[in-house]
Amino acid sequence: MEGRHRVVIIGGGFGGLSLARSLKSAPVDIVLLDRLNYHLFQPLLYQVATGSLSPANIASPLRQILQKQENVAVLLGEATGIDTAGRRVLLRDGDIPYDTLVVATGASHQYFGHDQWEKFAPGLKTVDDATEMRSRILLAFEAAERESDPEKRKAWMTFVIVGGGPTGVELAGALGEIANDTLRHNFRDIDPSTARIILVEGTDRILPTYPPHLSEAARKMVEHLGVIVRTSAFVVDVQAESVTIREGDRSDCVSTRTILWAAGVLASPLGRIVAKETGATVDKAGRVVVQPDVTVPGHPEIFVIGDLADFSHQGGKPLPGVAQPAIQEGRYVAEVIGRRLKGQSTEPFRYVDKGNLAVIGRGAAVADLNRLQLKGWPAWLIWVFVHLANIVQFQNRLLVMLQWGWLYITYDRSARLITRKDPPALDS
Amino acid sequence: MEGRHRVVIIGGGFGGLSLARSLKSAPVDIVLLDRLNYHLFQPLLYQVATGSLSPANIASPLRQILQKQENVAVLLGEATGIDTAGRRVLLRDGDIPYDTLVVATGASHQYFGHDQWEKFAPGLKTVDDATEMRSRILLAFEAAERESDPEKRKAWMTFVIVGGGPTGVELAGALGEIANDTLRHNFRDIDPSTARIILVEGTDRILPTYPPHLSEAARKMVEHLGVIVRTSAFVVDVQAESVTIREGDRSDCVSTRTILWAAGVLASPLGRIVAKETGATVDKAGRVVVQPDVTVPGHPEIFVIGDLADFSHQGGKPLPGVAQPAIQEGRYVAEVIGRRLKGQSTEPFRYVDKGNLAVIGRGAAVADLNRLQLKGWPAWLIWVFVHLANIVQFQNRLLVMLQWGWLYITYDRSARLITRKDPPALDS
Repeated sequence: MEGRHRVVIIGGGFGGLSLARSLKSAPVDIVLLDRLNYHLFQPLLYQVATGSLSPANIASPLRQILQKQENVAVLLGEATGIDTAGRRVLLRDGDIPYDTLVVATGASHQYFGHDQWEKFAPGLKTVDDATEMRSRILLAFEAAERESDPEKRKAWMTFVIVGGGPTGVELAGALGEIANDTLRHNFRDIDPSTARIILVEGTDRILPTYPPHLSEAARKMVEHLGVIVRTSAFVVDVQAESVTIREGDRSDCVSTRTILWAAGVLASPLGRIVAKETGATVDKAGRVVVQPDVTVPGHPEIFVIGDLADFSHQGGKPLPGVAQPAIQEGRYVAEVIGRRLKGQSTEPFRYVDKGNLAVIGRGAAVADLNRLQLKGWPAWLIWVFVHLANIVQFQNRLLVMLQWGWLYITYDRSARLITRKDPPALDS
Repeated sequence: MEGRHRVVIIGGGFGGLSLARSLKSAPVDIVLLDRLNYHLFQPLLYQVATGSLSPANIASPLRQILQKQENVAVLLGEATGIDTAGRRVLLRDGDIPYDTLVVATGASHQYFGHDQWEKFAPGLKTVDDATEMRSRILLAFEAAERESDPEKRKAWMTFVIVGGGPTGVELAGALGEIANDTLRHNFRDIDPSTARIILVEGTDRILPTYPPHLSEAARKMVEHLGVIVRTSAFVVDVQAESVTIREGDRSDCVSTRTILWAAGVLASPLGRIVAKETGATVDKAGRVVVQPDVTVPGHPEIFVIGDLADFSHQGGKPLPGVAQPAIQEGRYVAEVIGRRLKGQSTEPFRYVDKGNLAVIGRGAAVADLNRLQLKGWPAWLIWVFVHLANIVQFQNRLLVMLQWGWLYITYDRSARLITRKDPPALDS
């Protein structure tokens, strides 16, 4: 294998994994580097946060996925820097030489300069985030059951979700089902269905990237589950026991013990490192502004794909931070590498938008499939089908299907473990 | 419900849950207090530690299990003391009055005065323990893959399991399968099947509570999976990178980065609190020595059941720390409470030993069913059937069955997430 073209991919998300697999037959040696040992199916992470699925159902070991692809070596480790002159990725304890480098380390959420909010309002990007959210949601109901003071109980029974994009809407819908159905007979002193779930969105409608009539449909669906939707509303302060929401020139303070953060995008720190080393620019979210062929200016051997990339050559806006652009960019880069090795010319990347899906609950979803726009049951069935089909491992597909079937019939969410190492005192 | 006899159960394990369910039709008000919100099916915890099952598959929310039993209130909280004169269980933030108290808080492992070993040699009693063990096992193979120094690599590829009881044997068997089959094609630089797995047992045979010929059969089965069995061997020192094992008057030091602790029993601290308040005695393992009716001397209203109790009225030795005695004691206490309320006399507790099962791997198990003793496939099939039948929730039964079927066909263990918040540096 000595002397073959070396491709180093940093990040085993949708972009990195799609690239590695697309290079299956290419005459290259691939190193896939990730800090974690698994590929996470992020679109279903909110289902872990709300107790419908276990983490392992949506996380597949990268080694397992790629075990039969002999030109890939998976490496567990964290890139701390890039030596562009020496063409090496730097690790804490060594380095990896590359001929082609693909950076696909994704993005996380951000608090717009208020990082101190994070401990009160956790986001949802990792498995740990999801189990933390799950514990907080379940503990809130437990604390409410034990609380006799009506004001304090009301704060425990109030849930505020910040951000009305797909993640926020999905969390709000699942929380609505938990309160109305899943926990219905579980408590003796509280009625979970009296929980207040407040969804706060800064623009004038939830799911702002969808057509307005689908936003309206989604709003009706979450409201049907008892969710209070507040649009054109901004969270201006977050404390341990309250959130301050501003609408226009009025603001009010909501007492709550559970705040879930589903707003803001912040690219992985590796974006700034790439920019510093190559002279590329980063946008406000820290994403690397890439060329039409998703490379970095002046460095045709360095690609940036997925949520870490700001690709604005189609429509002037960066591509959305969802799986599809990452997957398509991964396939595109594989093709570019193959053509370059054969000395062939390459075309710029072209994103094909296959549409967007967001789910609210049982039989409740919206689908924007470009020409076709659906809501309710048809959209929900498409959502179920698409997500099952795209889960990476066959076993997980069966497990997810079985658990969804069970949830559908019984409303029971079985993965309801409180696993925080250090849960807050119920009496505080 | 005012004025009914109040039964407070501390602990929602096999004993506490069996008691609560057996009181279904009794004219009592029950409070089931637990620090965790779920009942854990501990016999399968080693399968979480070895990546075959997810935590939620063996953990069922107590509220869900008992949601239809209206005379039970489940409470999340930790008992900090007992006021036997005032008949109240003390919590950090309040108290719960009782007429009858049943303490069933179980036991954990112990390090025989060497608590400093715990951070190098984690035990297996909780979900967190299991995910910690799983992360350590998987990280060891990852570190070996990245390590170029042969000595250091060998230490990463060496696993020492301390204790040759059922848990130790089950861990050793599962690790053997992981090394030989599950990870077979996963790595590029190491061959997982060259891992050394050492099982250390202090007595002269593994599974010492089983008949000698079944111990011998179990030894052959684990050895067939490549496990090195060392009997009459004691761990006399544990360090971050080594274990010292003494056999007779010789001792040797094994370099290893992964030590799994499956030895020693230590009763929950509540045992000593009960003893202090009531004048009862505790045995060396901290268990409360109970009367023939599993009450505490002088306190007919206080029962201690399960792993927390030292019940030595049958055969002179305490009943084994497994599920069966706890379940039977729970049922017995329910009957005693019922008879007392009717003014009827009660009989002493009588344990019926239904036998013991231990599993090593696919088609490899031993069963000591009193008159009938089995090994290999017949024992394994009984093991599978008994464990599936006893998992509390129907959905989990399906999920476990599906995952076992998958494991059986493919040797794939899908729940292979490394989720430690603070993994050790691979290069250290």
